[in-house]
Amino acid sequence: MIKVGIVGGTGYTGVELLRLLAQHPQARVEVITSRSEAGVKVADMYPNLRGHYDDLQFSVPDVQRLGACDVVFFATPHGVAHALAGELLDAGTRVIDLSADFRLADAEEWARWYGQPHGAPALLDEAVYGLPEVNREKIRQARLIAVPGCYPTATQLGLIPLLEAGLADASRLIADCKSGVSGAGRGAKVGSLFCEAGESMMAYAVKGHRHLPEISQGLRRASGGDVGLTFVPHLTPMIRGIHATLYAHVADRSVDLQALFEKRYADEPFVDVMPAGSHPETRSVRGANVCRIAVHRPQGGDLVVVLSVIDNLVKGASGQALQNMNILFGLDERLGLSHAALLP
Amino acid sequence: MIKVGIVGGTGYTGVELLRLLAQHPQARVEVITSRSEAGVKVADMYPNLRGHYDDLQFSVPDVQRLGACDVVFFATPHGVAHALAGELLDAGTRVIDLSADFRLADAEEWARWYGQPHGAPALLDEAVYGLPEVNREKIRQARLIAVPGCYPTATQLGLIPLLEAGLADASRLIADCKSGVSGAGRGAKVGSLFCEAGESMMAYAVKGHRHLPEISQGLRRASGGDVGLTFVPHLTPMIRGIHATLYAHVADRSVDLQALFEKRYADEPFVDVMPAGSHPETRSVRGANVCRIAVHRPQGGDLVVVLSVIDNLVKGASGQALQNMNILFGLDERLGLSHAALLP
Amino acid sequence: MIKVGIVGGTGYTGVELLRLLAQHPQARVEVITSRSEAGVKVADMYPNLRGHYDDLQFSVPDVQRLGACDVVFFATPHGVAHALAGELLDAGTRVIDLSADFRLADAEEWARWYGQPHGAPALLDEAVYGLPEVNREKIRQARLIAVPGCYPTATQLGLIPLLEAGLADASRLIADCKSGVSGAGRGAKVGSLFCEAGESMMAYAVKGHRHLPEISQGLRRASGGDVGLTFVPHLTPMIRGIHATLYAHVADRSVDLQALFEKRYADEPFVDVMPAGSHPETRSVRGANVCRIAVHRPQGGDLVVVLSVIDNLVKGASGQALQNMNILFGLDERLGLSHAALLP
Amino acid sequence: MIKVGIVGGTGYTGVELLRLLAQHPQARVEVITSRSEAGVKVADMYPNLRGHYDDLQFSVPDVQRLGACDVVFFATPHGVAHALAGELLDAGTRVIDLSADFRLADAEEWARWYGQPHGAPALLDEAVYGLPEVNREKIRQARLIAVPGCYPTATQLGLIPLLEAGLADASRLIADCKSGVSGAGRGAKVGSLFCEAGESMMAYAVKGHRHLPEISQGLRRASGGDVGLTFVPHLTPMIRGIHATLYAHVADRSVDLQALFEKRYADEPFVDVMPAGSHPETRSVRGANVCRIAVHRPQGGDLVVVLSVIDNLVKGASGQALQNMNILFGLDERLGLSHAALLP
Repeated sequence: MIKVGIVGGTGYTGVELLRLLAQHPQARVEVITSRSEAGVKVADMYPNLRGHYDDLQFSVPDVQRLGACDVVFFATPHGVAHALAGELLDAGTRVIDLSADFRLADAEEWARWYGQPHGAPALLDEAVYGLPEVNREKIRQARLIAVPGCYPTATQLGLIPLLEAGLADASRLIADCKSGVSGAGRGAKVGSLFCEAGESMMAYAVKGHRHLPEISQGLRRASGGDVGLTFVPHLTPMIRGIHATLYAHVADRSVDLQALFEKRYADEPFVDVMPAGSHPETRSVRGANVCRIAVHRPQGGDLVVVLSVIDNLVKGASGQALQNMNILFGLDERLGLSHAALLP
Repeated sequence: MIKVGIVGGTGYTGVELLRLLAQHPQARVEVITSRSEAGVKVADMYPNLRGHYDDLQFSVPDVQRLGACDVVFFATPHGVAHALAGELLDAGTRVIDLSADFRLADAEEWARWYGQPHGAPALLDEAVYGLPEVNREKIRQARLIAVPGCYPTATQLGLIPLLEAGLADASRLIADCKSGVSGAGRGAKVGSLFCEAGESMMAYAVKGHRHLPEISQGLRRASGGDVGLTFVPHLTPMIRGIHATLYAHVADRSVDLQALFEKRYADEPFVDVMPAGSHPETRSVRGANVCRIAVHRPQGGDLVVVLSVIDNLVKGASGQALQNMNILFGLDERLGLSHAALLP
Repeated sequence: MIKVGIVGGTGYTGVELLRLLAQHPQARVEVITSRSEAGVKVADMYPNLRGHYDDLQFSVPDVQRLGACDVVFFATPHGVAHALAGELLDAGTRVIDLSADFRLADAEEWARWYGQPHGAPALLDEAVYGLPEVNREKIRQARLIAVPGCYPTATQLGLIPLLEAGLADASRLIADCKSGVSGAGRGAKVGSLFCEAGESMMAYAVKGHRHLPEISQGLRRASGGDVGLTFVPHLTPMIRGIHATLYAHVADRSVDLQALFEKRYADEPFVDVMPAGSHPETRSVRGANVCRIAVHRPQGGDLVVVLSVIDNLVKGASGQALQNMNILFGLDERLGLSHAALLP
Repeated sequence: MIKVGIVGGTGYTGVELLRLLAQHPQARVEVITSRSEAGVKVADMYPNLRGHYDDLQFSVPDVQRLGACDVVFFATPHGVAHALAGELLDAGTRVIDLSADFRLADAEEWARWYGQPHGAPALLDEAVYGLPEVNREKIRQARLIAVPGCYPTATQLGLIPLLEAGLADASRLIADCKSGVSGAGRGAKVGSLFCEAGESMMAYAVKGHRHLPEISQGLRRASGGDVGLTFVPHLTPMIRGIHATLYAHVADRSVDLQALFEKRYADEPFVDVMPAGSHPETRSVRGANVCRIAVHRPQGGDLVVVLSVIDNLVKGASGQALQNMNILFGLDERLGLSHAALLP
């Protein structure tokens, strides 16, 4: 039984970790920390967890207790994992960070986008980017894993088959992405209110979103060279889900894209290449650790359109974190993650 | 491994049965029938099931194939189970009917509310009303189970502690119930359109809803006498969930209602009596086979208010059907039903 | 042209006042105040107002500028109007208060429910409760008007025909009310987030909501004696709308309730008694200053069910405030308020 | 007073026409037809219209009665206006068609996309495409107006400033469009159900949507040459609204795009170019006849992103139809269309 610690479990990725771990047969949550909610039972904060974790309560972060765990998840704002990860690694604990702290390989680029110096540049070399479909072997050996962001997961999984095959013009890629409101977190912000985000659609951060450098970094790895990406995120009136609509120029019209995608993901348990002509719905992955993808070439032209959907809290965060944990500890990768999505 | 058949699996209770059965370790779906969708794979109709049931397809109803199953679920409009249940029972198959066909003990009352003669009155004597919190022992021995409706489940579980204890004035009970739109089924009706049911709230069927006689029958059993019930259902702009707000006059102000409810459900795995002062949210049971209840006595008056929430597709339909199956086959009642609700 | 001032216009009742006043042919907004947003243009905060009010900006509250207006609306949290109303009245300005400050006639009752002393008890005698269907003549003469709350408007309009006629048992009334989320205001609270309030239904404040004494006071006036009311508000996943489901015992089964209601509201421009058997939808009043009502006697029993719907921001707040202004200034009561609701 | 007839008023564009015409001071609805609802009062079908049109009822289409009107609006499925428009024009009645029947100048292209022969090719020459921002002068003289579709309106208004100025590479334009569910109409289709379209996002018709040739035709007019457009529509869980996210390559980085857009629409009453850096929300135009636009050049690159939002039922259909009527009859273009959007 893997002993699990969670730092900062009061947000949506935290409660989702708890929901998924409640079904995991080989892991048990030992510690969950929150400064603001210390002393509160998790089931009092999240009534869906009543009947599970009835004795578990939030506690003040304590490196010693966390260090006694086999693995610690960070479900925190950026900056927190920088401060604690090193000590935990020294204690022999594996770290799986759901925040952005170790996603960018370049500390200076991180500092530029997050507006503060990187707090643990010495750890960057060994941090593994936890996208199993790309880095499975490295994850197996890792001590410190940076779980990809939600937009980056949907976008990379949709584009890397084209880039790895050298088919797409990497200099002019577009990711038009639509996210449910839970992607903005559980913070009390006016923009996330029901009466502000409901019954409306808007783009945001068109001039530059923090996920842009992360996606670009991943696409560069896939293409083996520079990439030019325009990324436009949109806030969509639904709770969960990301729909990435991806545009890439593929001049070679002779290539069988459906076969390419199916082959690329043939052995992936959590990527579903749908039949030709499909339009994946975000609800088809609600609550499930799956990315569903469809590839189109409208009017037989040069521009290929890839549709890629995930649940931002599962394959885009907590589910992917557990998938990493399973790989890291040599378990069946699907353990605790094989349930079907909730539809309707 | 229990061999399962499903008749009429194209609606929301059908897909929910499939979702839940995919996680059940002791049951396997052998047959699923639909005249209109015969030949279609279930995963083509319900993309959340891709990766599960990849070979299962809808077939034309065939009594022989269904009769080879250990149990057959009916997820059909009323009238269908009347026609088939007898043959299946003769073949030694257990029948769990999610429709209204065997819920009312009185064939004439059924005929009055459903506008057609009862098609199988001879089976009524042995049909067991599948509310485990009331009929667990009978369910164990049953061949034919009528799974309670969604409103009836939420309402009965909220009121029977008061009625069994003889505390409430049974002659003037009120159930003000709010249902998500999935309760109206997957039929293409104008009233269920997103643009009709969304961003709006309305009562319906105030002069008489078909669930009224079912609820009254259950409350009579609990109170041991006649009941007077006013039942007002409302359509609420959410997909899943029932919130029953129940009003009962309890003249004896000395009784500890919280203790009464906690004691009544102390051994029930799927009824959660929340702490005094709670307000259960329907999302706290989304996707889960739980009824959460809170009991209030506002301003210390005579009128007691009970709040009772379920997911209409789970504890109000398919989950409860599986709970019945577990009991019927001597399994742990919680098998396949122990996952936490999806929140947010 | 009536010169209008608005104090505290950054919330939802504020923007709704501005939307409605933009269509009013006899009124013009001269001043709108907000400490936090001073210097910001209203059209920058509320993009639906772009093209209207292009020069109007929030300013720091200034009694002199407000006192130069013919009428000042308070769209503020409770307590603010207490502090300012007296000075404005002294300056000869009429005050229409959308907050709770002057709704309760009894200063001590106010203090008990709002947890602070009443700040202007000397003004209570002359404050008029601005429900035109009850107090039209007093409104005409008033200097200070307390606009009713949203729940109180829907509930009183639904029950007063029964109470004024002495038909209902006033000792056991029930108001089961469902409100859209905008009723909670534009404050950044976790409970009002899209991911908290969406796709869910819950009761709240069952032990006692601040609108209870206001409703009770109004019902006492209608019945001419004491009333016993149980009021259970619910949070509903929609932006606008209140649906009040009202229960009253009317022992006399011979009375023609439909005729009673139609007669009571025959001359009211903003109360619509729907045909017998109707189920009003909240969307049928979205954006419009109308209360639609239907009256039922289910199964011909003693319990009468009244369904009453309003838009909480219009007939439940800003629209009703303008209706009061029209009456106060001797205008056609419907001026600026005659547009149809937005459906779908 | 303009005498107005409406053919096929039972859908969402029909009820929206009625809502807007109720506020129009110079027009009165004389006839509204519907075969299926003949004899039904419009206010019985659409309760938001109670108190307006209390005597108006649907009637069987009758060319004589329609021909007695000054103008007839078609709010019908495609094909209906083909059959009737000629007769009405002969009777001296102006025709404003909200359907697709006269939008494409080429009858064969129409036949290809709509799967049936064009029913009135002889009228195509005189049909005017009713986008006032492009064709105002022609509209003034027209007898037959084809009101643009919803996607085409949002997309053309967003792209034509770039194309008319010869700045964009017309061979590789992308329109990634998100529509509310009302765009699918009021027909009882499974895909439009609350439980199917709610809480989910999906693309559809990626291989070719019927609005593609209409948009391309409009962009060709603007650019003066061929265009290559990829158009991907998405179904979004909201009732009203279209958000078009438009991508165009503009190699010349020296041009002041903000100034270009502001100048192009300086005199347009219903196009709002928002300040640089803005992200228009669809709710900012809910119920209003406005298109709000923002133009971005992310990271200062070659790819320009234009955000363009409308209410699909207003500026995308019925509001634009009335704007055309106003122009046609020499009225102030803003008559009946100057109200602010409903927010929240």
